[in-house]
Amino acid sequence: MSDPSFPPGFVSLVSAGPGDPDLLTLKAARRLAHADVVLFDDLASGPVLDHAGPQADLIAVGKRAGRPSAKQDAVNALIVQHAQAGRRVVRLKSGDSGIFGRLEEELVALTAAGIPWEIVPGVTSASAAAAAMGMPLTRRLTARRVQFVTGADITGQLPGDINWAALADPLTTTVVFMGQRSFPKMAQGLIDHGLPPDTPALLAEAVGHPGQRLLPGTVSSLADLLSRDGPASQPGLILYGPLALPA
Amino acid sequence: MSDPSFPPGFVSLVSAGPGDPDLLTLKAARRLAHADVVLFDDLASGPVLDHAGPQADLIAVGKRAGRPSAKQDAVNALIVQHAQAGRRVVRLKSGDSGIFGRLEEELVALTAAGIPWEIVPGVTSASAAAAAMGMPLTRRLTARRVQFVTGADITGQLPGDINWAALADPLTTTVVFMGQRSFPKMAQGLIDHGLPPDTPALLAEAVGHPGQRLLPGTVSSLADLLSRDGPASQPGLILYGPLALPA
Repeated sequence: MSDPSFPPGFVSLVSAGPGDPDLLTLKAARRLAHADVVLFDDLASGPVLDHAGPQADLIAVGKRAGRPSAKQDAVNALIVQHAQAGRRVVRLKSGDSGIFGRLEEELVALTAAGIPWEIVPGVTSASAAAAAMGMPLTRRLTARRVQFVTGADITGQLPGDINWAALADPLTTTVVFMGQRSFPKMAQGLIDHGLPPDTPALLAEAVGHPGQRLLPGTVSSLADLLSRDGPASQPGLILYGPLALPA
Repeated sequence: MSDPSFPPGFVSLVSAGPGDPDLLTLKAARRLAHADVVLFDDLASGPVLDHAGPQADLIAVGKRAGRPSAKQDAVNALIVQHAQAGRRVVRLKSGDSGIFGRLEEELVALTAAGIPWEIVPGVTSASAAAAAMGMPLTRRLTARRVQFVTGADITGQLPGDINWAALADPLTTTVVFMGQRSFPKMAQGLIDHGLPPDTPALLAEAVGHPGQRLLPGTVSSLADLLSRDGPASQPGLILYGPLALPA
């Protein structure tokens, strides 16, 4: 179990991918197998954790859609504490940890404490959602730009600093993370800024998990649906733009 | 070697990730191990192909930075031909195949020929570049949007339909794919549209390959560099925005 690239006291910030354990990277699987402790978000739980070895302590540290999370400061302190105790620490984050993963706060805390770390990139749930739907995120002529945005700021509301010219661009694929609750309001803003209401859209819930649901529609039909049914209990993405939805 | 999810005559469009074989997904590695034939872009070659089994024919089909590529139609025909011959086909594409991977043309050809297929998503080189630099792509307050754009249209020139309001946004992380040649011109456009010339930037070449080079700077310093030295022979990305570059 000795791996010179993962010594005691080292923290590996591992991206878990969208949830399907088959979409873990080889490096992520190896880090999990060798970890003494795995600090995971609820969203990254499930079969991915089966890759951890029998020696590993598995500790949930919160971050579940629609529920209160452990405070980030407390998570930072916990990671530091385990590393300082000389353990091989995996900090497991869902999707790609560099995309809406609150990664920076943890990097800063580790660096301040003088603890060595690495980032293991992973498959973002945006790529997994498009693959599950059987379509690309970019298109050669009609979608030469793809953008990922968040539908919720730290208070859970639609961020106040939205660049509408960027988001209402009909020649771009947009993926909204954490946006199920605010999408009706976002959709109204998009339409007010010129995006056609019948722009193709896709609601992708629990991508890579057993409850995966892919619901194609349009910007206005999905906004109506989410407005009527309220936010789903499962994490989800909303994609819109010139999507190559299968016929 | 029998896997009911990968039968003879089936095409798996596999994302190879950035090049480091450790960043293959478990599913990608398994598909490679079971393939009868692997059709790969030069950019996806190297140690990733070591995961193919001894039975596999490995066939390069072009797409190398700065060199003429096999015509897309010829690639489509080759994939269809191998599948119709009853082989298990892996079509291996670098990075995440759904992002600037010319994936759609191949999906359309396969569907038209009645051949069953799947997409295996992967780690985009944008995520790998940020992880290698030790930084996230998004930041909680200053980069709530991340966008991927191409610096080259099908003729190799800067696309004519650029949304400058989206690209010159100082509160966004932008990743330019295939942009080394056109970046001096793009940078001038960005500055003309209000982006500060001293906006942090990163040139990331051969991410995940042995020749990996990470060159931090600013939008104007990297534009000067690329203008002076000409395009690199290695594939690369340019990232700019409120990057959390390590001190």
